Amino acid sequence: MNDLDPAELGRRAEAMLEELAAISAEPDRLVRLFLSPEHRRAADLVAQWMREIGLEVFEDEIGNVRGRIGEPPYLILGSHIDTVIDAGRYDGPLGVVAPILAVDALRRLNALPEIGLELVAFGDEEGSRYHSTLPSSGALAGHFDPRHLELVDPAGVTFEQALKTYGKNPEKIARGAIPPKDAAAYVEIHIEQGPVLEAENQPLAVVSAIVGQTRLKLSVKGVAGHAGTIPMRLRRDALAGAAEMVLLAEKIAGDSSNEQMVATVGIIEARPGAANIVPGEVHFTLDLRTASDKARETAIEHFKSEARAIADRRKLEFTDELIHNITTTPAAQSIQDQLAQAVSAVGAKPLSLASGAGHDGLMMSKLCPYGMLFVRCREGISHNPAEYASPADMGIAVATLVRFIERFKPPSR
Amino acid sequence: MNDLDPAELGRRAEAMLEELAAISAEPDRLVRLFLSPEHRRAADLVAQWMREIGLEVFEDEIGNVRGRIGEPPYLILGSHIDTVIDAGRYDGPLGVVAPILAVDALRRLNALPEIGLELVAFGDEEGSRYHSTLPSSGALAGHFDPRHLELVDPAGVTFEQALKTYGKNPEKIARGAIPPKDAAAYVEIHIEQGPVLEAENQPLAVVSAIVGQTRLKLSVKGVAGHAGTIPMRLRRDALAGAAEMVLLAEKIAGDSSNEQMVATVGIIEARPGAANIVPGEVHFTLDLRTASDKARETAIEHFKSEARAIADRRKLEFTDELIHNITTTPAAQSIQDQLAQAVSAVGAKPLSLASGAGHDGLMMSKLCPYGMLFVRCREGISHNPAEYASPADMGIAVATLVRFIERFKPPSR
Repeated sequence: MNDLDPAELGRRAEAMLEELAAISAEPDRLVRLFLSPEHRRAADLVAQWMREIGLEVFEDEIGNVRGRIGEPPYLILGSHIDTVIDAGRYDGPLGVVAPILAVDALRRLNALPEIGLELVAFGDEEGSRYHSTLPSSGALAGHFDPRHLELVDPAGVTFEQALKTYGKNPEKIARGAIPPKDAAAYVEIHIEQGPVLEAENQPLAVVSAIVGQTRLKLSVKGVAGHAGTIPMRLRRDALAGAAEMVLLAEKIAGDSSNEQMVATVGIIEARPGAANIVPGEVHFTLDLRTASDKARETAIEHFKSEARAIADRRKLEFTDELIHNITTTPAAQSIQDQLAQAVSAVGAKPLSLASGAGHDGLMMSKLCPYGMLFVRCREGISHNPAEYASPADMGIAVATLVRFIERFKPPSR
Repeated sequence: MNDLDPAELGRRAEAMLEELAAISAEPDRLVRLFLSPEHRRAADLVAQWMREIGLEVFEDEIGNVRGRIGEPPYLILGSHIDTVIDAGRYDGPLGVVAPILAVDALRRLNALPEIGLELVAFGDEEGSRYHSTLPSSGALAGHFDPRHLELVDPAGVTFEQALKTYGKNPEKIARGAIPPKDAAAYVEIHIEQGPVLEAENQPLAVVSAIVGQTRLKLSVKGVAGHAGTIPMRLRRDALAGAAEMVLLAEKIAGDSSNEQMVATVGIIEARPGAANIVPGEVHFTLDLRTASDKARETAIEHFKSEARAIADRRKLEFTDELIHNITTTPAAQSIQDQLAQAVSAVGAKPLSLASGAGHDGLMMSKLCPYGMLFVRCREGISHNPAEYASPADMGIAVATLVRFIERFKPPSR
């Protein structure tokens, strides 16, 4: 067997992902929640794989499965094994499986780097059970927020109780953190969850940044009334105003010279909500993301001022409430460069792409330089059973990771 | 007392409406449903008022309270005593109380017309209990649809069972119909439920027609996706498409040379409905009304063809389903003329206004010529406890009705 044959690596990745995907709380769809019996089984399977390739494996007190080889500082490689409800099998697990295959290949080739390696399977990235914010990578990075312990799942079980039931000691979570001096870098392989690589006909992209995000809760108030009796000229229709604002958001993102800006109205509710009543009140959300914090702030201000103008013209009331505001987290330039070289080394084109979705890199960036490699997925579909990455592309990703690890130079800090 | 003093008539109307408004199923809001104990009490109160002014009173087998004086053919005068949930006190009851006051005045003045009069309080116009379609006036007009008997209320009680509990014999409903030869005309006084009279600073309007209405259920399908990872140029956002269609509907009605055209999107739902997911599917309603059937049909076709163009441009799927299509029901010209003369006789300006809302006239028009008189209401508010018509305006309406009855000439048929 050629240990660096991408086709073979892809087949092995696919087989391992299939094995993980069989571990679900429900027979007909994939549901694997943090600290559940399925988490236990998946963690044990990953630990077994890690042992099989010669890693020294342990679990920390938040349930991360960690396998080490060599001495610190460590190049940390991993992703998460929890899922959304009715998930696909690639989001997370691919980034757990790929380093196992890569390290296995390097060992067989006697090509392990001088630097130590730590492979990790995070237990909670999706926040599906607790609406949590990256507690697993937070713990590894030494930034676990203890307020997480009080969160309650839909069954009424607190995060703290669930940890204890899982056999963990919540008081010792901090001890699992890697000291900054021992962390050389964090690198994650993940499916793109978007359609750009497919449109560009390329298997891989080097992530430039995890983009900043502003989320607003917006409301428009007018006057409700009978759909048959209020003449058009006397209406103060909250939905007509909100419709203009939906198109405004789309236009601002679409017109932007920063072509990776995206704006989404995902929730809209018109009240009172009857076919024969002019809406008196509309509530909706705006989610705007782009790699440039300045461009994001400018776009949000532009949206708010134009929305107010629409409201004024229509005699409506417009209010906005800030829900999230997260700045852009750039990937370390040195990691980006080394990943791009590795992508070129396997004969692919090193595209650069910002990640519109959040990832554990957000937390890991607080500990050490980070980077990510995106793998093409079909039609950009994710968080859905139709999620798909081809074995061929996954194999190219593993081969790239092998090249990357082999030649890895810790970024200067 | 001057029996034709509008101020005094208005005060009496207000007092009677207050007495009716006290009859509610709930202590804190007005709820008076068809065939309920409150319907019974309100019907008894109206019957008592009718007897006090010398009418011969009876109830038909669908629960209409009817009071007659004189011989057929009858000029039929009335409205409904059921309400929506959390109703105002004027919608319906004003049209029951006003004829009682008018006939009382005419008797005192010895000015009853040669023609007979029948006053009626319909039990179900709102359809609040059964989502019914004017069964009470339908029965009076000889057009009761027996499928109503199978309708079921939220408590699981059928229309037929409720009638029996109310002491009625559903098999005899048809016997309560007035033969067409005995029906000279139907005239109803009702609050406008719109803001036109207030804007025009006039107390009354003669209704020209109950306008036709087309209601569509519309859906737009695109592709759902992650709000952070799908570039704007690759989106097929169902909500952005629907927003354009909301504004299209508004523009078609607003631009129309027929200034009484109204178009309303009252319900909108974006799926899956999460702040971080591009909507893949939007469902919404369109309610379009105008007095010209031709203009309504043209506007609907225009909307559908432009909506399809919007969908095509955005690579969305657009579908429409017809829910209602009701043609315009003009008021009899002779009744309109006689009402206008009566309005002028009391010193008000005889405005002409189409009714955007449906009324019992829709059914009564199948029996005989019909007409309506609208009374100004505050801010156009109706179906709401804030509904209000001033005693002064109601008094002018009663005085107008007195003049109308006194001089009434049955329209030629």
